[in-house]
Amino acid sequence: MSTITAPSSLDDKLVAARSASRVLATVPTENKDAALRAIAENLVRSSADVIAANRLDLVAARENGVSEGLQDRLRLDETRLEGLARAVVDITGLVDPVGETVRGRTLPNGLKISQVRVPFGVVGAIYEARPNVTIDIAALALKSGNAVVLRGGSAAENSNRVLVEVIQDALASVGLPREAVQTIDEFGRDGAKALMRARGFVDVLIPRGSAALINTVVAESTVPVIETGAGVVHAFIDESADLELAEEIVHNAKTQRTSVCNTLETLLVHRAAVDRVLVPVLRKLRASGVTLHGDPAVRAAFPDSVEATEDDWHAEYGSLDLAVKIVASLDEAVEHIEAYSTHHTETIITRDYAAAEEFLARVDSAVVMVNASTRFTDGGEFGFGAEVGISTQKLHARGPMGLPELTSTKWLVRGNGQIRG
Amino acid sequence: MSTITAPSSLDDKLVAARSASRVLATVPTENKDAALRAIAENLVRSSADVIAANRLDLVAARENGVSEGLQDRLRLDETRLEGLARAVVDITGLVDPVGETVRGRTLPNGLKISQVRVPFGVVGAIYEARPNVTIDIAALALKSGNAVVLRGGSAAENSNRVLVEVIQDALASVGLPREAVQTIDEFGRDGAKALMRARGFVDVLIPRGSAALINTVVAESTVPVIETGAGVVHAFIDESADLELAEEIVHNAKTQRTSVCNTLETLLVHRAAVDRVLVPVLRKLRASGVTLHGDPAVRAAFPDSVEATEDDWHAEYGSLDLAVKIVASLDEAVEHIEAYSTHHTETIITRDYAAAEEFLARVDSAVVMVNASTRFTDGGEFGFGAEVGISTQKLHARGPMGLPELTSTKWLVRGNGQIRG
Repeated sequence: MSTITAPSSLDDKLVAARSASRVLATVPTENKDAALRAIAENLVRSSADVIAANRLDLVAARENGVSEGLQDRLRLDETRLEGLARAVVDITGLVDPVGETVRGRTLPNGLKISQVRVPFGVVGAIYEARPNVTIDIAALALKSGNAVVLRGGSAAENSNRVLVEVIQDALASVGLPREAVQTIDEFGRDGAKALMRARGFVDVLIPRGSAALINTVVAESTVPVIETGAGVVHAFIDESADLELAEEIVHNAKTQRTSVCNTLETLLVHRAAVDRVLVPVLRKLRASGVTLHGDPAVRAAFPDSVEATEDDWHAEYGSLDLAVKIVASLDEAVEHIEAYSTHHTETIITRDYAAAEEFLARVDSAVVMVNASTRFTDGGEFGFGAEVGISTQKLHARGPMGLPELTSTKWLVRGNGQIRG
Repeated sequence: MSTITAPSSLDDKLVAARSASRVLATVPTENKDAALRAIAENLVRSSADVIAANRLDLVAARENGVSEGLQDRLRLDETRLEGLARAVVDITGLVDPVGETVRGRTLPNGLKISQVRVPFGVVGAIYEARPNVTIDIAALALKSGNAVVLRGGSAAENSNRVLVEVIQDALASVGLPREAVQTIDEFGRDGAKALMRARGFVDVLIPRGSAALINTVVAESTVPVIETGAGVVHAFIDESADLELAEEIVHNAKTQRTSVCNTLETLLVHRAAVDRVLVPVLRKLRASGVTLHGDPAVRAAFPDSVEATEDDWHAEYGSLDLAVKIVASLDEAVEHIEAYSTHHTETIITRDYAAAEEFLARVDSAVVMVNASTRFTDGGEFGFGAEVGISTQKLHARGPMGLPELTSTKWLVRGNGQIRG
């Protein structure tokens, strides 16, 4: 199925992706798993080439004054490549969603109808300079029977080019079309724009990265988008909260890993819980180096906290910062969340059954928790085995996405001559 | 919950819709059903007002030279209003999708996670001059816990204004917010544009109507869209097709109702079945007044058929016209469908098991059939009890949409102090 000359124009690449997707749609699971194992092996075998290409990107990043944190996200080494290869092999262990019957019945007229999972077809991904995403998205797309067109950050262009070659060689080695995984990085921003307008060629577009990137894709794309990511995550300490639970959960949600989207960003506290709960909770956070951005009541209790402004209620800090606000009631907490949340994850800490159920019912976010750390919003933690991202939209997928979220469905209707009367 | 002064600006209306949606999200089924019964009663009680307003629209339509067919779609009378009222009452008999647990489990760490159906929130609908859609969409949205913002065709503006008042009065009479159902027809095209850009206020937009309307909404909207409708529907008569089945199915699919989206538009025939099957099939169609648009081989057999052009393979005639093409193989049939179909519904007529299974597997459409009339692609026929539309996109919903397709989900996580290690 592999072509002799690789497609070179963007249009050719999109046409080739559509064509490859038709092949992939009906490839048996065992062949897809063989491709994943070949990719993992080729990653390890080609590690010197990948690392050499990655070094070019790292040198350029340093010259361009890219931050240490971003350089670290960009970096690939033997250990990281082995980790990526293992993650690809792990995907062979996941259930293939394609072909699953979602529901079905026999109609009174004898028609047998069944709704079965099918691949989307061609998945587009637009992301930033994290070459691990290239491998990750390609492997998940392949397992779910999709072709994929990748547009990574330009700062990772050398790394991604070699990684895609590694994947394509592996696909060819097991008889699958190379064009099932392609990069369009060489077309720069124009390529990204064209991908967003490639209706009929790309079935769904998944942006992964900053809020700015995601907003651009949502605004520009005529291809359907699954929004992922941005998390202005709230915890609400209710009047009845258990002190120890509040201390542990808030501390874990804020400090266990600060750069990820399920990290706590705003703490809301019932005013009746300030002396009993808030004071020790904040002391524990302060001891771990957390900077508090408080409303006036919080600043009265913690004079060295920073004054919170309107921006703080919108902030996804990604750092050891926390906005803290005292509210008069669960109602006010829910209203604050409604006004400022990105509807990713919110948790309530309470001993009150009615408050717990009311919070679960009224808060309109992808994941709503009682007495648990927001850090659990994660495909791995939810038992999906792999995570495509965390959807913060309401259409198609909401919350952590696994392989089934990379599929659509179609209805099969088996008859024996039925006509409509 | 109803406001004293009705919101007047478009922004006010959208804010009011969001606010009403929060109320509706947790209203018990019995209250929603009471609202539906009140709407049905008020429709019948107010029929004189509705018909008077509708007459204004009809007079204007006649003056503007609108076709008889469109005038008929616009017309409301006692009988039609009673039918609409009955359809609204019927929706009380459907299962409320809100609160359904889609899946759930207890994680090894004791967290109990469950994914439950929740309303989208605010549903926007943009449609043409069919006032029945106003009632239909409002009733389905209410039953699924959604507020709705309606933009109907300007030619039905008087009818829709009165219908929305009828609905709002019924909502108020059972203590639900009037703003759960609003029209923005008074803002004209600017209103429609604003609705398409109302990210954060409108959760999903459903266009219903012509391909041109749907394409505009898809291109302009930053709100997620569910595409409905357009159907360039194919039947393929395989080499082994049973003659009688082919005659009955093709005749039914083309002639039983020509103006709807699941009507057959293109007939593909295996060249080995021309003499045995195609000739009698076309004779039967011709006897029912069908105009044939044939490729050269068809015209050789039926000299008075019209010459098919490229446009015919793209045509959704909506009339007693049929494009007919002879193909060399199932492969060629699948390729033609891939190139020209809107991926709504396709059917194969065959006695060959392998051909049937291959067609089902390879044709990438919302509904793929064997030996059945394409007219069965319909929410009512599928047993959904009501139909929101037929989705031709792959995201969120595909094929006939029932009430569950008007919902999203959220994850509820119940813990007792779990933190991530």
